[in-house]
Amino acid sequence: MEHPIKLYNTLTRQKEAFTPLNPPLVGMYVCGPTVYSNVHLGNCRTFISFDMIYRYLTHMGYKVRYVRNITDAGHLENDADSGEDKIAKKARLEQLEPMEIVQRYTLDFRNVMAQFNALPPSIEPTATGHIVEQIEMIEKILDEGLAYEVNGSVYFDVNKYNETDNYGKLSGRNIEELISGTRDLDGQGEKRSPLDFALWKKASPEHIMRWPSPWSIGFPGWHLECSVMSSKYLGEQFDIHGGGMDLKFPHHECEIAQCNAANKVEPVKYWMHTNMLTLNGKRMSKSTGNTLLPEELFTGDNDILDKGFSPTVVRFFMMQAHYASPLDFSNDALVAAEKGFNRLMEGITTLSVISPAKESTFDVNSWKESCYNAMNDDFNTPILIANLFEGIKAINSAKNDKASLTADDIELMRKTLTEFTFDVLGLKLETENSSSDKLNGVVEMLIAMRNEARATKNWALSDKIRDELAELGIQLKDGKDETGFTIN
Amino acid sequence: MEHPIKLYNTLTRQKEAFTPLNPPLVGMYVCGPTVYSNVHLGNCRTFISFDMIYRYLTHMGYKVRYVRNITDAGHLENDADSGEDKIAKKARLEQLEPMEIVQRYTLDFRNVMAQFNALPPSIEPTATGHIVEQIEMIEKILDEGLAYEVNGSVYFDVNKYNETDNYGKLSGRNIEELISGTRDLDGQGEKRSPLDFALWKKASPEHIMRWPSPWSIGFPGWHLECSVMSSKYLGEQFDIHGGGMDLKFPHHECEIAQCNAANKVEPVKYWMHTNMLTLNGKRMSKSTGNTLLPEELFTGDNDILDKGFSPTVVRFFMMQAHYASPLDFSNDALVAAEKGFNRLMEGITTLSVISPAKESTFDVNSWKESCYNAMNDDFNTPILIANLFEGIKAINSAKNDKASLTADDIELMRKTLTEFTFDVLGLKLETENSSSDKLNGVVEMLIAMRNEARATKNWALSDKIRDELAELGIQLKDGKDETGFTIN
Repeated sequence: MEHPIKLYNTLTRQKEAFTPLNPPLVGMYVCGPTVYSNVHLGNCRTFISFDMIYRYLTHMGYKVRYVRNITDAGHLENDADSGEDKIAKKARLEQLEPMEIVQRYTLDFRNVMAQFNALPPSIEPTATGHIVEQIEMIEKILDEGLAYEVNGSVYFDVNKYNETDNYGKLSGRNIEELISGTRDLDGQGEKRSPLDFALWKKASPEHIMRWPSPWSIGFPGWHLECSVMSSKYLGEQFDIHGGGMDLKFPHHECEIAQCNAANKVEPVKYWMHTNMLTLNGKRMSKSTGNTLLPEELFTGDNDILDKGFSPTVVRFFMMQAHYASPLDFSNDALVAAEKGFNRLMEGITTLSVISPAKESTFDVNSWKESCYNAMNDDFNTPILIANLFEGIKAINSAKNDKASLTADDIELMRKTLTEFTFDVLGLKLETENSSSDKLNGVVEMLIAMRNEARATKNWALSDKIRDELAELGIQLKDGKDETGFTIN
Repeated sequence: MEHPIKLYNTLTRQKEAFTPLNPPLVGMYVCGPTVYSNVHLGNCRTFISFDMIYRYLTHMGYKVRYVRNITDAGHLENDADSGEDKIAKKARLEQLEPMEIVQRYTLDFRNVMAQFNALPPSIEPTATGHIVEQIEMIEKILDEGLAYEVNGSVYFDVNKYNETDNYGKLSGRNIEELISGTRDLDGQGEKRSPLDFALWKKASPEHIMRWPSPWSIGFPGWHLECSVMSSKYLGEQFDIHGGGMDLKFPHHECEIAQCNAANKVEPVKYWMHTNMLTLNGKRMSKSTGNTLLPEELFTGDNDILDKGFSPTVVRFFMMQAHYASPLDFSNDALVAAEKGFNRLMEGITTLSVISPAKESTFDVNSWKESCYNAMNDDFNTPILIANLFEGIKAINSAKNDKASLTADDIELMRKTLTEFTFDVLGLKLETENSSSDKLNGVVEMLIAMRNEARATKNWALSDKIRDELAELGIQLKDGKDETGFTIN
C-alpha cells in the first residue's frame, strides 16, 4: 500500500502497522447496542468512530466486512451473573413481549444511526438469532475441559484456562489481583472461582427469554454471543475487533478466553477501543441521570443546551477529538463546533468561485499528503480536520486575491476536501436546511423590494408581491418596524 | 363495538363479524418478504394492504400485535422441495456471505416500506433467529406420529394427517385431486406421498446455511418458520393471518397442518388474502421479466412509464382497489390516480378557507357514517375513497358559495378527512415537494419582476435581482425566449 496505516492495538499496547490477514479483505467486528432502551450518546460515539474507520479503510481500497451485533437477548444486570434480566423486567413492567421492546429500540437505534449518517454494517446479527451456534461453542469449550456444568448452568473455568493461556492479557490485569478484588456476591455459590463467568444460565421460572439446551431451559451468557458471531461471519481469526473501552474488561477479556478455549487460536489481530464521553465534565450514564439523548441533542430539548444541534454538527464535534481520547459534551463546545462546521462547508463552496491562476502559492500535494498522514496515524481525525482548515484558509486567501491556485490544484483540492469531508468523516451537507434557507432568502429579497415600492408609494407593486406570495402559501406580516412572514 | 367490522374469511369462504379472541387485543401475522433480492411490487401491495388493516384496527381502538417475518434462510427453489437454495446460490455467485445478502435486501425492503409510509410491525422475527423453536416444533409433530425421518430429513405425513383433519381446507382442494395432479419430480424418492413436505432437510455439502439438529446438519423447511413464529409471538391460536393469495396453497395449507399437528388446535380464526398485481394486463413476476421495481416507479426509470410517481400516489392508487381484487398497473392509471390524489389534498386544504355558515346543506354525520361503513365492510377502501370525494365535492361547493357548512361540521369534516386520509389510508402530504414548489414559485416571481425591469431598461434592478439570487446559490440563465434557473 502507498499509505501504510498504523493503529493502536490495545492488546499489544502499541501502535502497529495494519497488515490484514487476507488483504484486500478486512474483517471488522464491533460490539453493538443492547436494545432495551434508547441508544446512549456514548455508544453513538463508539459506532460513529468505527463508521469513520470503516469508511477510511474502504476509501483506502480495502474490502471490509463489517459486523456489528444487536444484543436482543436480555443479559444479567451485573457482571456477577446474578440479578434480573433487563429486557424481561421491562417487558413485565410494560406488559409487552420482549421482542416488541427489541423491535422498538432497534428501530430507534437504526433511526439515530441514519441521522448521524453512519453506514449500515455489512451484517447485523442478533444474539437470539444464534442460539444454536452458542450452544455449539459451549459444547466445544466443555469438550476442552475449560467449562463445567452445575445445576443446569455452565461456567467458564478461568483458573484452568489460565494454566495454559493468560486471562487478563487485554486489560493488563493478572488473575491474582482480580481474585483479591472480588467480593462474594449473591448467586456465586455455583462457581469454582469468582472470576468464572456463565456460558449458559438455567432460567428462573420468571425469566421470559429462554431456550432448550443440553443442560437446561435457559439462556446464553452475554459474553458468548460476540465470540460466536464474530467467528461465524469473519472466521476464527480476523483483523479488527472494536468497542467502547468500558467493554475491555470483562467482556472482551471473556471473548478472548472463549475463542481461545473453543478454537485454539487467538481470535483478533487488532483490538481497538474508543474512549468515553463526558457531559459537562462528568461521566455520562443512564444510571446517574447525567445523560443526553440523541433526540434531545438534535432538538435542544434538554436544560444543558441553549439550542438544538444537527446530527452532522454533532458528528463533526465528535470527529474533532481522537477516537481514543475522552470527549466532553457541553453547549459551548457544540456552538464552537457548529461554527467550525459551517466554516468548512463555506470553504468548500467558495472553491467553486475561485478564478484559476497560472501558479499556485499553496502546495496542494503536500497538503493532501498531510491529510492522509493524519488518518494513517491511528485515524487521527482532529489532525485531519486541522489540515482541512489549512486548505480552507488557502481557499479564502485565493478568493480575496491574497493567494492563487491553478485549475488543476483547485480540482485536486475539491476532490480531496469532498472525499475527506463527506466520504471519510461522513459529514453531509444539510440540504433540507439549505433549501429552506434559500426560500427564506428569496422571500427576504421580495420583502425588501416591497419595502422600496411602499417607500415610493407604488402600492400596486407592493400589493402584487403580497398577493402572489399569499397564493404560494407565504403570508407577509407587517409589523411595527419590519415585515415578517410565515410559510404554510 | 359501535361499528362492528366484517371481514372475508378465506377459511370459511364468507364474510364474518370480526370478534377477536381476547379483545381489545388483536394478534395479526403476515408472511413477510424473502430477502434475497429487491422487494417485488406485488409484495408491496400485500404489505401496504395489511398496513392499512393494521392502521384501521388500531384506529378502531384495538391493540394490535402485528408480526411480519423476514425469511432470511434460503428455501428451496420450488415447492417440490428440490433444487438449489436461492440465497446460497446468489451468495456463491456474488462471493458474499448469505447474511450479507440478507442485510442488503432487508435494508432495501425497510427503505421501500418507509417510502410507502407503512408502519413497522410490532415484531419482525427472522427464520434464522428461530432455528431452536423450529426444531422443537418438528419434535412435537414427530411425537404425534405425523412426520417421519428419512436419511436425515424429516417430512410431514399428509395422508396420516388427513385421516383426522382436512388437508386442503383453506384452499378448498381435496387430497385425491392434489395427488392426481402431481408429477414425479426429482428428489421425491424419500417421500411417502408426493404431497408430503419437508420439515427439515439434510444439507447437501454445497448448501451454505445449515444448522445441527437431532436428524442431520441441515435447514428447516420453509413452511415451518411461519407456524413457529406466529405461535411464539401470538399464541397457538390467534386472530388474523394474512398474505398474498399465491401463498394460500401450499404455504398456508401447510402452516395449518403443522400447527394442528403440533398443537392440536386450529391456529387462525380469520385468514385474509390479498389479490395479485398485474402490469399492463399481464401477471407481474420476476421470472417472466414483466416487472417494475418500486424504485423505477418512483423515478420513472422504466419504459412502461412516462414519468415517476411518488410513493404516496402509488399507495393511493393501490387503495383505490379493494385488497382482495386484482389490480392492474399502467401509466395511464397512475396518472389518473395522481390527479385524484391531488384533488383530495387540495380539498383538505380548501376546508381551511371556508367561512362557516349558520346551517349546513351537507349531512356530515351521515357522510362520516358512510366512511366507517365502507371500512367496516371488509376494509373497502375504494368505497371509502369515493365517499371521501363526496365530502370534497361538498367542500368545493361551500367554497363557491353553492353550499354551506357550520363551524362544527367544518371541524368534523376536517377530523374525519384527515383521520381517514392520513391515519387509516396512510397517505401523507409531500412536504419536501411542496417546499421546493414554493421556492420555484418565489424565484419565478423574481424572474417576472426582473423581466419588467429589463423592459423598462432598469438595468440596476435587473442586475441586483440576478446577483442577489446568485448569492443564495440560485443561478439565472437567460435563454432566447425566457429565463430559466438552477438551484445549487
